[in-house]
Amino acid sequence: MNDSFSDRLAYVQRLRHSVVCVGIDPDPARIPAHLGSDLSVSIPAFCRDIIRATSEFASSYKFNFAFFEALGSAGHDIMAECLAAVDETAVTIADAKRGDIGNSAGFYAKSVFDDLGFHSVTVSPYMGRDSVTPFLSRSGTCAFVLARTSNPGGDDLQQLSDGTRPLYEAVASLAGSWANDEPGEAGLVVGATDLDAMKRLRAIGPDVPFLVPGVGAQGGSARDVLTASGSGPILVNSSRAILYASSGRDFASAAEAATRALARELEEARS
Amino acid sequence: MNDSFSDRLAYVQRLRHSVVCVGIDPDPARIPAHLGSDLSVSIPAFCRDIIRATSEFASSYKFNFAFFEALGSAGHDIMAECLAAVDETAVTIADAKRGDIGNSAGFYAKSVFDDLGFHSVTVSPYMGRDSVTPFLSRSGTCAFVLARTSNPGGDDLQQLSDGTRPLYEAVASLAGSWANDEPGEAGLVVGATDLDAMKRLRAIGPDVPFLVPGVGAQGGSARDVLTASGSGPILVNSSRAILYASSGRDFASAAEAATRALARELEEARS
Repeated sequence: MNDSFSDRLAYVQRLRHSVVCVGIDPDPARIPAHLGSDLSVSIPAFCRDIIRATSEFASSYKFNFAFFEALGSAGHDIMAECLAAVDETAVTIADAKRGDIGNSAGFYAKSVFDDLGFHSVTVSPYMGRDSVTPFLSRSGTCAFVLARTSNPGGDDLQQLSDGTRPLYEAVASLAGSWANDEPGEAGLVVGATDLDAMKRLRAIGPDVPFLVPGVGAQGGSARDVLTASGSGPILVNSSRAILYASSGRDFASAAEAATRALARELEEARS
Repeated sequence: MNDSFSDRLAYVQRLRHSVVCVGIDPDPARIPAHLGSDLSVSIPAFCRDIIRATSEFASSYKFNFAFFEALGSAGHDIMAECLAAVDETAVTIADAKRGDIGNSAGFYAKSVFDDLGFHSVTVSPYMGRDSVTPFLSRSGTCAFVLARTSNPGGDDLQQLSDGTRPLYEAVASLAGSWANDEPGEAGLVVGATDLDAMKRLRAIGPDVPFLVPGVGAQGGSARDVLTASGSGPILVNSSRAILYASSGRDFASAAEAATRALARELEEARS
């Protein structure tokens, strides 16, 4: 398809009445016991059931690479198997937070876009333009650049100011300029814990897709986040609250209920 | 062994009279043709021969994760196979430029240190303290934090100033403070293209290990780099100039010669 990433995202979010992104963070310690102890079986089964159960109410799925890399040799194929459970309409995000240059960035981009087939990826801005543009080289894709993150250490660098604006605002402006001449789009990772930052970033990029972690568990209510992010595109991620809504045999239906509840809360806040 | 990372590094560098780090960046397009077209065979053979041929004159080996991830499903095992070719005395670096938080960072650390067995890793500072400390939790290891990188885009963020100092200096100070209460060490990635930055960073951390890319190919001469980095620990990385010193059947002996020449040049500059 020749649609832009934003077009594709808008389509599936309208279709499903949902801006919810389900974060796929399969923690071996929290996989329901009845799925067995062989992770090469239990993790694909767990992720597949979560993805199928939530697909009516989720418009996107974010795969956290750390959890798959920790599986060692089998990690790549397990991730590919889980990814295959996502329906064709939903949008996928490789949450890999890559940040390297030239050749290396090109190989990372090849891996996530061409080989694994993700629609988007998270990237770190620290090394600057030539660490991000290799992830902007494919039409229909998006590189979500880390801008304002929701973790406690997010302040350490991101809040440093050059006298006129904090670093995260400089990153947002730079990311926009880096994407100007590229076929791919630049989005931003904007945590739900700093709503003032979210407003400032929306002012810089009215149409920039925001990937927003930190709703609920770490902070920000659905209503506050949607108010702060305005009318621009947004993907609201929830991982643990959905994946581990139940540790029993009903984990998939509990995940479905949690996803539906979050989607409704966001839709109501939106209208 | 209970030695610190710096002790281990100093030992092997003295033993081999070399601060050279060989960068293992196996580019499928540049593997000598006589090794065949099956990358699961040719890449381990290529890396193993390079590592064995250079081991007399190199004190450390840096594995660029991008090149292995691009190999897909087989990438993890190919990297483990190549890593096994490094002798027990040399120091290894996982050049993965990771940067994520909490659980995720913990899983990345588990993967590089516990499963793959690297001695050190490169990490991005953008997400702050809690994205770096999980990589500082093992004694005898080191997390090389990106400070001043040698690529053109390195200026985009790293040179931004808060009025008193550029961002890369703030990163160096923060990294030192993050490591204060941790069993692991924090090193810094400092490109050879900005010798003024290198001097400033050495003043901030007299005993901090510097991982230095960009000698030769991208800039900075051996003598200038050693002058700027002073007497503190340093690993001078060279990748392409060693790996692809010859594209023929003599690739390993050409790599050995290139490593020996660089090691000598650095030793002479040092004394």
